[in-house]
Amino acid sequence: MIELPKSPLLTDLYQLTMLQGYFEQGMNDIAVFEFFVRRLPPNRGFLLAAGLEQVLAFLEILHFSGAELEWVRDSGRFSRDFPESLAKLRFTGDVHAMPEGTVFFADEPILRVTAPLPQAQLVESRIINLLHFQTLIASKAARVVLAAPGKLLVDFGLRRAHGAEAALLAARASYLAGFQSTSNVLAGAEFNIPVAGTMAHSFIQAHDSETLAFEHFARAQPENVILLIDTYDTEAAAREVVHLAPRLEKMGIAIKAVRLDSGDLAEHSRNVRRILDNAGLKEIRIFSSGSLDEYAVQNLLARGAPIDGFGIGTHMATSSDAPFLDCAYKLEEYAGRPRRKRSEGKATWPGRKQVYRTYGAGGAMSGDVLTLDDDPTTGTALIVPVMRDGRRIRGPETLEDIRRRSTQELARLPAGLRARQDGPPYPVIVAKAVRELAAKLDRQSMQN
Amino acid sequence: MIELPKSPLLTDLYQLTMLQGYFEQGMNDIAVFEFFVRRLPPNRGFLLAAGLEQVLAFLEILHFSGAELEWVRDSGRFSRDFPESLAKLRFTGDVHAMPEGTVFFADEPILRVTAPLPQAQLVESRIINLLHFQTLIASKAARVVLAAPGKLLVDFGLRRAHGAEAALLAARASYLAGFQSTSNVLAGAEFNIPVAGTMAHSFIQAHDSETLAFEHFARAQPENVILLIDTYDTEAAAREVVHLAPRLEKMGIAIKAVRLDSGDLAEHSRNVRRILDNAGLKEIRIFSSGSLDEYAVQNLLARGAPIDGFGIGTHMATSSDAPFLDCAYKLEEYAGRPRRKRSEGKATWPGRKQVYRTYGAGGAMSGDVLTLDDDPTTGTALIVPVMRDGRRIRGPETLEDIRRRSTQELARLPAGLRARQDGPPYPVIVAKAVRELAAKLDRQSMQN
Repeated sequence: MIELPKSPLLTDLYQLTMLQGYFEQGMNDIAVFEFFVRRLPPNRGFLLAAGLEQVLAFLEILHFSGAELEWVRDSGRFSRDFPESLAKLRFTGDVHAMPEGTVFFADEPILRVTAPLPQAQLVESRIINLLHFQTLIASKAARVVLAAPGKLLVDFGLRRAHGAEAALLAARASYLAGFQSTSNVLAGAEFNIPVAGTMAHSFIQAHDSETLAFEHFARAQPENVILLIDTYDTEAAAREVVHLAPRLEKMGIAIKAVRLDSGDLAEHSRNVRRILDNAGLKEIRIFSSGSLDEYAVQNLLARGAPIDGFGIGTHMATSSDAPFLDCAYKLEEYAGRPRRKRSEGKATWPGRKQVYRTYGAGGAMSGDVLTLDDDPTTGTALIVPVMRDGRRIRGPETLEDIRRRSTQELARLPAGLRARQDGPPYPVIVAKAVRELAAKLDRQSMQN
Repeated sequence: MIELPKSPLLTDLYQLTMLQGYFEQGMNDIAVFEFFVRRLPPNRGFLLAAGLEQVLAFLEILHFSGAELEWVRDSGRFSRDFPESLAKLRFTGDVHAMPEGTVFFADEPILRVTAPLPQAQLVESRIINLLHFQTLIASKAARVVLAAPGKLLVDFGLRRAHGAEAALLAARASYLAGFQSTSNVLAGAEFNIPVAGTMAHSFIQAHDSETLAFEHFARAQPENVILLIDTYDTEAAAREVVHLAPRLEKMGIAIKAVRLDSGDLAEHSRNVRRILDNAGLKEIRIFSSGSLDEYAVQNLLARGAPIDGFGIGTHMATSSDAPFLDCAYKLEEYAGRPRRKRSEGKATWPGRKQVYRTYGAGGAMSGDVLTLDDDPTTGTALIVPVMRDGRRIRGPETLEDIRRRSTQELARLPAGLRARQDGPPYPVIVAKAVRELAAKLDRQSMQN
């Protein structure tokens, strides 16, 4: 029902100005670019790779339409021949990547593009845009998943996500990280994610009494009776639920849960649990929302709040405590020669790289080695081929398969990282082969 | 070349479950919802309204397509008659709003929807999604504009904006707040915003020498020669520019600017300025980028950095120091009766409201009054009718007109807010008429 924008004009102007330079100079040799995160943001001990599927879908159909070529022509910024070269451009390269749902760390590439320079260059902006955001959100969502073992987690992020695509992709990223469902109907329809939702305060307010609103809702949605009880007075509403339950039962309708959305959720959930239990309504679950994130959830559970599920919105969909990653897509090789950027604080490791991971007791991750692709190293190679000559090697992975991988990956985090998530730094060794190559390039450059 | 998603399924599931309840109960009376920000985030002394244009475009064509109705039918979540009711649904209501580019404060509605309850309810999620994000970014961009008077400001946010729509709308929001251009080509094409851009480090790295890269670029883009000089050694590159300039001049090509992207930008800009000036190249401008925001820009200018323009990316496009607003779209009246939510910490002011602004010496804003729409109050009414019976009252405002309004508004901020932006709180008085109505509703509710 919806297509993410595929326009090659969704790029930074400098990609086009550089492309014209490349075309004019006949610089069409093979370039190798890698996407990686330079440093983990504060409060993040690991990241979860996500967004590859959308990158591959974008590369597969990359081309300039007539209207797009016309814009280039009419912009007056480019040479007469440039639109013609663009018209022929397709993505014919190779892609290697860590599968979505893989845990990774700073400096480790999660995507490598090997393609003629103009192609690999043009796609930079959108590749970063897609990988950055979903990785950001999957990594935030994974923290919530670890903070709330066994709890129902629902994405509520649509309204404050940064636009429509962010809302759709945040639903996808949180689901693959282990959430159970989303409130976002279009994301459900698009990605086949279970959808969930009940009622807003406006439904209650539009009725002349709260009880009447509850009853009307129950009759309209008999299979899905989750009642929002904080519009006026949470405990008073819980007592209304106690009176309503037997009436609904006679109609064959069971109340599944109540939802709390404001106030001290630990306190209210304990009171509500007691009110419901005293009335023999032990099977009614308590669901909670309202500015929640992994810190709030952890705190509520530590305080023994009898809450069965959480709706997590704004803080997850914006990754509010770390709303961006310091990531880059950098040229590591051109025309068979490794390349290195040396800008202060932003130097890169040159060459085509691979990450090898080793596992210790109980299968927990014990350390990674970042090395050159052709440097034989022990451990499991995390970066695998996914696209050859512009075509996927396999069909798209299902979201369920990716979600299972995430679950396994989170289970294999070192205990420290699983428990605290920002715990002791995970050991990533930059291999001698990489350091020596970097030093060699620096020496060559000084001799020039 | 691109259409923002218009699907009515871009909504929270609960809107649909509530709609079924409303249809079943025949609750089709007029509802009044208002969008407002509950509290300003830290570091924000004011906000700049944005996003109305996209809201109106969404409302104008609101309808369910065949595929969307099919999803509703096949979901198994709704009654048999529900899709039929949805098929007939269009937006036939009225909209009142503060024009885009208006400065506003906490509690002040910037949008009021007056429509049959199901219509006004269904559009909640997307209305918040659209108004929240553009207002967030326009408000952040306005801070950069105030921090850098007279400087060239370019949006560089595409890659780390949260998805494609965020990138496009951040380009729009920053332009309307006073930026001069964007690097985002599609945003330029879509919204008719000037585009800007030069070269990336990869262009330099792909060449065997930096000077050769500069020369190739200059010949490919003779009208737009802005050279990135920090790939290896900033000052050394500036000296290369000095050698290159006369050679290019012979070809009739002038170097417009150099760009710094790393290291101590104040220090580098001073060194580069000196190197250029000593060579008589005073007309070459210095442009700078690299993790910049209003704080960094202010700091650079305070240190006397001779920088003429700034590319502002990640921090603006994610509003990184305040990545969301505590905003809401709340029912204030239904079937002619004012309504009030009393949830702890989230109580709302009931009724249809208006904001009156007064101005003091030199035309500076001196204070606002939030009152009921029918309460005669002195000052300029900020909320105006923009849509009647589902049709716009006037055609879309041009982005240039909105941008001019923003400029005027920022010029009329109280001096404290203009200088520091998070300075002394601006006085917003909640009128007696509103407080009395709230108290009356609370009393009525206790008697029930």
